[in-house]
This record gives sequence, C-alpha cells and structure tokens, in this order.
Amino acid sequence: MARVYNFSAGPAMLPTEVLTRARDEMVDYQGTGMSVMEMSHRGKHFVGIAEQAEANLRKLMNIPDNYKVLFLQGGASTQFGAIPLNLGNGSGKADYLNTGHWSVKAIKEAKRFVDVNVVADTKPENFTTLPAEGETTFSPDADYVHYTPNETIAGVEFPYIPDTGDVPLVADMSSTILSRPIDVSKFGVIYAGAQKNIGPAGLTIVIVREDLLGKSRENTPAMLDWATQAEADSMYNTPPTYAWYMAGLVFEHLLAKGGLEEMGKINERKAEKLYAAIDGNDFYRNPVEPAYRSWMNVPFMLADDSLDKTFLEEAGRQGLVTLNGHRSVGGMRASIYNAMPEAGVDALIHFMNDFAKRHG
Amino acid sequence: MARVYNFSAGPAMLPTEVLTRARDEMVDYQGTGMSVMEMSHRGKHFVGIAEQAEANLRKLMNIPDNYKVLFLQGGASTQFGAIPLNLGNGSGKADYLNTGHWSVKAIKEAKRFVDVNVVADTKPENFTTLPAEGETTFSPDADYVHYTPNETIAGVEFPYIPDTGDVPLVADMSSTILSRPIDVSKFGVIYAGAQKNIGPAGLTIVIVREDLLGKSRENTPAMLDWATQAEADSMYNTPPTYAWYMAGLVFEHLLAKGGLEEMGKINERKAEKLYAAIDGNDFYRNPVEPAYRSWMNVPFMLADDSLDKTFLEEAGRQGLVTLNGHRSVGGMRASIYNAMPEAGVDALIHFMNDFAKRHG
Repeated sequence: MARVYNFSAGPAMLPTEVLTRARDEMVDYQGTGMSVMEMSHRGKHFVGIAEQAEANLRKLMNIPDNYKVLFLQGGASTQFGAIPLNLGNGSGKADYLNTGHWSVKAIKEAKRFVDVNVVADTKPENFTTLPAEGETTFSPDADYVHYTPNETIAGVEFPYIPDTGDVPLVADMSSTILSRPIDVSKFGVIYAGAQKNIGPAGLTIVIVREDLLGKSRENTPAMLDWATQAEADSMYNTPPTYAWYMAGLVFEHLLAKGGLEEMGKINERKAEKLYAAIDGNDFYRNPVEPAYRSWMNVPFMLADDSLDKTFLEEAGRQGLVTLNGHRSVGGMRASIYNAMPEAGVDALIHFMNDFAKRHG
Repeated sequence: MARVYNFSAGPAMLPTEVLTRARDEMVDYQGTGMSVMEMSHRGKHFVGIAEQAEANLRKLMNIPDNYKVLFLQGGASTQFGAIPLNLGNGSGKADYLNTGHWSVKAIKEAKRFVDVNVVADTKPENFTTLPAEGETTFSPDADYVHYTPNETIAGVEFPYIPDTGDVPLVADMSSTILSRPIDVSKFGVIYAGAQKNIGPAGLTIVIVREDLLGKSRENTPAMLDWATQAEADSMYNTPPTYAWYMAGLVFEHLLAKGGLEEMGKINERKAEKLYAAIDGNDFYRNPVEPAYRSWMNVPFMLADDSLDKTFLEEAGRQGLVTLNGHRSVGGMRASIYNAMPEAGVDALIHFMNDFAKRHG
C-alpha cells in the first residue's frame, strides 16, 4: 500500500525521507558493515552519531550553553517521578497547573514525593480552556512550577510561557517540542517523550539548566538522577541507541527544511485551515476556546456520533488513519505533528467536507 | 563493506536475516502504509506484534503461566533500583552474590533501599572464579537473593542455579538469556537488558512470578512498579514499540532455528573451540577458572600487551571488530552471543593463530 496519512497522537508519523534513509542504512551503516543497532554505544561510530544529534538539537532549539541535554529512556511518565525527586529537595513544595489528562498524571505521581499545590485547574471546564496570561498566582517558596504546554487529549495549548519569577519552570513538551521556536532560557527544565515530534518511542529528551543539577532527594534511583546522567553524557548505562540515531535523522531533516521558524509557519497554517473547516461546517465541532486551541492535536466531534464508525471506515479507505479520539473522550482527533504533510491535512479537510455533504 | 563479525559486548550483533526483514518492513509494514515506529501502541497492528512477541518468548523459554512477562524501558540498571523497591518490603534485607562488575553495580544501587548482605564475594580473586555449588549460605529471612548468572567483563558464568530454598531468586540474565534452556520455575524474577541476545538497546524484559507482585515499597515511582506495569500489559505509558517489534523478530528467528536447545549446542561449541584456541597457544591467556568460563563473553590477553593495538588493527582489517577488552580490564574480549555465527568464531580463531605465528 502507498504510505498513509496517519493522524495518531503518538507514536506518530515520521518523515518518509527519514524512514527511507534508516531503511537504506539498516543492514550496513555507511560502510561500517553493521547496523546502528549493533554498535557499541562507546565506539567511535555511535559516539559520533550521538554527538551530532545533540549538536543539531541545540542548533534547532537554540539551547543556551548552560543547559544540559539528556537522552534518556523511560518516557515522560518516568520524568513525572524524576522531577520531584530531582527538584523537590528545598521546601518540598511544588506548584502544578492542572490543564488536562497529562497534567493529572504528572500531579498524581509528584504527590508521592512532594507537597503539590494546584495553582490553576481547568477540570471544571472539562479542560477546554486555559488560564489567561498573568491570571495564575505562583508560590514564591515552591521548588518548581510544572505545566503541560500542550495537552494531546483535549487539544489545548498555551500561547504564552507562564512567568514564574525566580522559581524554575518545568514543562512537559512531549507533544509540542520542535513544532515552533521557543525561548529555552525561560525554562528550568524541558522534557519530552520522543514519539510525537522527535523519533521512535523509547527515548525521552530532558533539557535542564545546569544549576538545577545535583540537588536530588535521598533515595532517588540512580537512573532517574539527572546529575548522574549528565555526568555520564547520558551513558550511565546503555542508552536507547537506535532511537537516538533516529532522532538525529529527524533533527537533520528539520534543519534542512528551514528549522523551527519554518516548521512554526507550516504548523500554524495546517492548524488554521483544519479549525476553519471544523468551524465552518455545522456537521463538526471542536469544543476548545479558540485562543487556546492546539496546533498539534485537533479533537472534533460529529454532530451525529452514530456516524463515527462510518467516518473512520471511509477515511481509512482513503488512507486517512488513526483518527479515532482518545478512549476517554470519544469522537475524532487529528494529530498533525511536524511529520504530517500539509497535503495530509488538505486530504482530511477534503474528505470531511465530502463526508458532511453525503451524510449531513 | 560486507557485514563484519562484531564481537561487541552490547549493543551486539543481530541476525542478518532479522535486520534484512526489518529493513524491508521499515517504510511500509505488511501493507499498512506505515512503519512499525509510527503505529499507535494501542492500535490492532502493534498490539498484534506485541502479543506475538510475548507468546514466542514464552514458547522459547517455556515460561510457566504463573509468571508475567514485562517489556519495559530503562535497562538492567533501572531494575537494580526496581528490585529492592518491588521486593524489599518484608524484612528489608536482601542477599547478594558479588561476582563481577554488574553485581557491584546492582549492590550499590540496592543499598539505597534495603540492607544488603553479601553472601559470596569473588572480588579477592579478581572475579575470575565463582562460589562452588552448595558453598553459599543464604539468609532465611532475606526478602530475596540476587545474582548475575553471567558477568560480561570478567567472563564468568554460573554452571548451576543457586538453591535459595523459599527465598525468591532474582537473576540479571542480560548477557545469558536465550543462550541455552533454563528452568524458569527456579526463579522469582529474571530480567535482562535487550542489547545482547534479544534486540536493540532500550528494552528490558522482566519475567516475574505473580505472587511477588503488588508488594512494592512506598515511594516506588509508578514506572518502576512491576504490578502497575503488569496490570497495564506493559503499556502503562508508551512502550519502546520498535525495540519490542525487533525482539519479536529475534524470537521468531530463534524458534525457526530450533529454539534454545539448538542455540545451547551451538553456543557451547563456539565457546569450547575459542577457549581451546586460547589455552592451546602460549601467546594467549584467559584467566578464568575453567569450570566457570562464560559461553558468551571470552576475555583474553596477549602475552605481550604491546601488541594489543596491532592485534586490533589487523583484526579490524579482516572484518573482526570490537575485540577490545572493557576499559576497566584491558586486553581483548570476544563476545559471542547467539547472533555471532560459528563462522565468525572460526574466523577469529584462524586470525589468532596466524597472528601468533607472525608475532610470537
């Protein structure tokens, strides 16, 4: 079959050029006679791959020199525990913004280790909105503030970076990293599971300001201690080498395409036209307050949900797949990360209009 | 370049047939129009891949029904912490056998959480031997006993399973799993990082007897809690899907080759001939007591270590690579896991004999 447009929330599409290159290098990487998967992580070939990937990520995101970049295993869910273990050793208090499914999970895990103060909560609005800029009051004695800039399930995204003063800001950027330029210097810690905008599942990037290292709580497992990982250049143990390599290919691809400025323009355009198609047709509905709609995850409902199954089947036959909404929400969801071509969004809009005409 | 014989201790060789198949399926997995890397872990395609992999591993290892099989991230080093957190909640005491580099690391991490009693220690012998069967006395009130059946650096391997009575036996099988048949029912927990005999780095298999689940210590991070992972079929968060798929291809390949009985015969033969070549030539030396020599990791020294560099260079030119010993030991090390063909061992022996003749 031809390549499909896969709207999965993650693991998600990867650029076809990246997959093709990975295919061509699979059995023999650049004349080494071995696959990247087979290389010692301490050998010169893999160390070269790893260093180049980090250099390219630093360039893409313009990461200041006083930040470490870690390539870890375990997923953002592992960091939900690592964050309070690494940072919650001062007052033992932390501020959290509760703005969706992933915030809820981060808060639940943090409560095992620190006193969590929920300083903003949009659950009463079913996570369809966000606190306005400047509206949230933070605790001056918190060890850190945590938030989720983009929530994949309800499809909300902060259009601003909360100002937390001197308290380090920690952001779960799993579903928004690399989608547009950001000012890394505003953050204490940025972390992201790879499987949306970076590469295959099994890799998590942690970008941490150096002065926040080395303060972990007693009984922090060594593998979750950022300082331990930073000292070992993310090779305290064997890292997920193949995922690291794939991430490097994606970074290289993004640089060649014009970097995050260019991705931001394309992503904004993709999102705008999809929301316009939804808003412009009574057959579809997106419940999120327009100012806070996500560029990456676009949930929408059919006016008649008895047509959901037909919608998914017909879409699938046209190569538009994984459009089902999260099991906790229902309806549809189109995740349109960097690797979703604009042509894929166009094809979805075309199908949606046609489907509405035939069934509306 | 042609495929090389790569003697890396891990990440290590994978069967060429497996890599070729992965290459062919990279851009479009079996007509789905997407790569396995791009699939939602909750979609039917990936769930099928995941279940088949587990079924094949159960068949290969003859895993009893009262054991859960977990596919996790993080590496054996993560389990060094997870083991005391999951099992050390009774007396808070654990017995450890200290028989090499990896035992040392497991003990160091366990001490953060439980009282460690070292019941056997071969460090005085520089880890070149092991306790004889029946020689070790275990503590009846320990929560568990931990050992490392095969140590990759010194190259020692237990030819027996320690009898710990009713105390659960926990084994780090990273470098010996799947190399020969074992009786899983003798163990409480078996765990193994994938990057030696299973698949790519970034996946760790944990095989745990069901009655040991659900007893974790307070403050165990959710991701390290085996019960949480078992309840979620290893999908508490997004698992390392591509590594899981690759492991499945390896399991299928091993079954087609005759399973672990057959692998055991081949591995024994490969090891025997390599040790015979070392012992039969004064130019080479392996310091390990013969009864405890590893089938998987064969360290050896040249009589004149000023020739080490020349040995590695000449070997490399013949496609025999990553033969350097661990940086803590020096000399040479040939890791000859399942995926190292017997022809690779033959080529190494031929080269060693020739090198000795020319330089001896």
